[in-house]
Amino acid sequence: MKTYLDCIPCLIRQALHAARMVSTDPALHTSVVRQVLRWAGDMDLRQPPPVMAQRIHRRLRTICLNDDPYRLAKQHQNRMALSLLSELEAKLVAAFDRLEMAVRLAIAGNVIDLGINGSVTEAELRQSVSRVLDESLVGDLEKFRKAVSKARSILYLADNAGEIVFDRLLVEQLGNERVTLAVRGFPILNDATSEDARAAGLHEIVEIIDNGSDAPGTLLEQCSAEFVRRFNQADLIVAKGQGNFETLSDEPRNIFFLFKVKCPVIANHTGLPLGTHVLGHGSFLPCSP
Amino acid sequence: MKTYLDCIPCLIRQALHAARMVSTDPALHTSVVRQVLRWAGDMDLRQPPPVMAQRIHRRLRTICLNDDPYRLAKQHQNRMALSLLSELEAKLVAAFDRLEMAVRLAIAGNVIDLGINGSVTEAELRQSVSRVLDESLVGDLEKFRKAVSKARSILYLADNAGEIVFDRLLVEQLGNERVTLAVRGFPILNDATSEDARAAGLHEIVEIIDNGSDAPGTLLEQCSAEFVRRFNQADLIVAKGQGNFETLSDEPRNIFFLFKVKCPVIANHTGLPLGTHVLGHGSFLPCSP
Repeated sequence: MKTYLDCIPCLIRQALHAARMVSTDPALHTSVVRQVLRWAGDMDLRQPPPVMAQRIHRRLRTICLNDDPYRLAKQHQNRMALSLLSELEAKLVAAFDRLEMAVRLAIAGNVIDLGINGSVTEAELRQSVSRVLDESLVGDLEKFRKAVSKARSILYLADNAGEIVFDRLLVEQLGNERVTLAVRGFPILNDATSEDARAAGLHEIVEIIDNGSDAPGTLLEQCSAEFVRRFNQADLIVAKGQGNFETLSDEPRNIFFLFKVKCPVIANHTGLPLGTHVLGHGSFLPCSP
Repeated sequence: MKTYLDCIPCLIRQALHAARMVSTDPALHTSVVRQVLRWAGDMDLRQPPPVMAQRIHRRLRTICLNDDPYRLAKQHQNRMALSLLSELEAKLVAAFDRLEMAVRLAIAGNVIDLGINGSVTEAELRQSVSRVLDESLVGDLEKFRKAVSKARSILYLADNAGEIVFDRLLVEQLGNERVTLAVRGFPILNDATSEDARAAGLHEIVEIIDNGSDAPGTLLEQCSAEFVRRFNQADLIVAKGQGNFETLSDEPRNIFFLFKVKCPVIANHTGLPLGTHVLGHGSFLPCSP
């Protein structure tokens, strides 16, 4: 997906928010915003929004001499989600259709996001879980069920810390022995890395690989050769979150995108209302090739 | 008031919105946004936000070869407000305290804004009027009443088209013979010009002057010598709207600012919640010198 003009004010706002998170120095905030404005003035709009977000966060990490300024936030999100785990498991056990419930919970966990919403509280997360059956799930669950049953290998692209605890339940439903879980190669925002996958206990049930990149999405041209090989060989790819959707929506692979529509640009692009829970196959979504 | 870093994403968003209003050409939208990003990267943040807004709208007027792209919108807003006039007058006649009611109505009319909210519907305007007594009015009405009773000359700085119909009622309460109404010197956004003041019938009851400038606020250094003379000589100045507040809040004159807090930056700057109706004397507001 390209970067829409409407993404630009949002990227500037996110840069300011992130600059304030890594430093209390107003002069630094100003310098970061000015830098990002100049970059944005010359940016290639054919690239997806995570390209600019990656550039912004690389700069912030250099400035604050901290390669993972969101570490504490991620640890907090993992703990918050883990404290809900038994409740999530109970919901799953009680569900008539466990695959559907696992999909719904995995999407509900996608509210944990620092890029767009700033932060999510435990109360908001609990509310998202309690409403999980009331949300309209747009997409094709039966097509997904069929794709899952046929696939010998499934590559599961995680999105955020905290959310990855919710992903664990879906990974188990997909059959862990077929699943490889992929996380970001380096810290970026609150996106899940190997550390977060381990915090969620996923290393005990599934193979974990990283994609070799620090983009808040999956920019294949930046990913490791090994990741790209796994990406191309997987029978089925499950891609979580808007970042993975924005970066992979034009890829002609067998990908199901699971995410919550969190911003007006994605709402416009997909033709789906803000807040929609999406389980969309590439061919279902309007942006697919 | 200076331009806060948080104003910048909003200025970019407003520029995009305005570019879409004056043209349907996506290439032009992109070129305007890129231009504004570059300006914003180098902008002097000590200046108030209307300085950048003025620059953006000057550029748009040149591009679309139209010196008043908001004319139709303003005419619509004037008609919408005029259709409520008899209702507003009835409210005023029935009021126990007519000055207070006129102040409340004048602030209620400040919801008509194209800069921040995009547009306001007649239903929203009616709602704003019907709730006029429920809104918390923060400021010092008694101080205002005293200042009005003492003043021999009052300069009333109008804000937007449509809103100026609401201003008419307050102008009448202030005593038209003492009041001079000042409007923008040239069209900018939906800000009121002489044409709008006449549409609201104000030319029949009060002297109208213009400030000689096309800023969406009052940048004294750009105003005509005659306007500045009137500004300096008036016993009391009534300044409507955020734009006048942003540009005059540091002026050491006897100014009462009447506006609705419409954005988080003004909320932070004044320490008042979003949506607050303000009748603030310079000395009351935290930003005053």
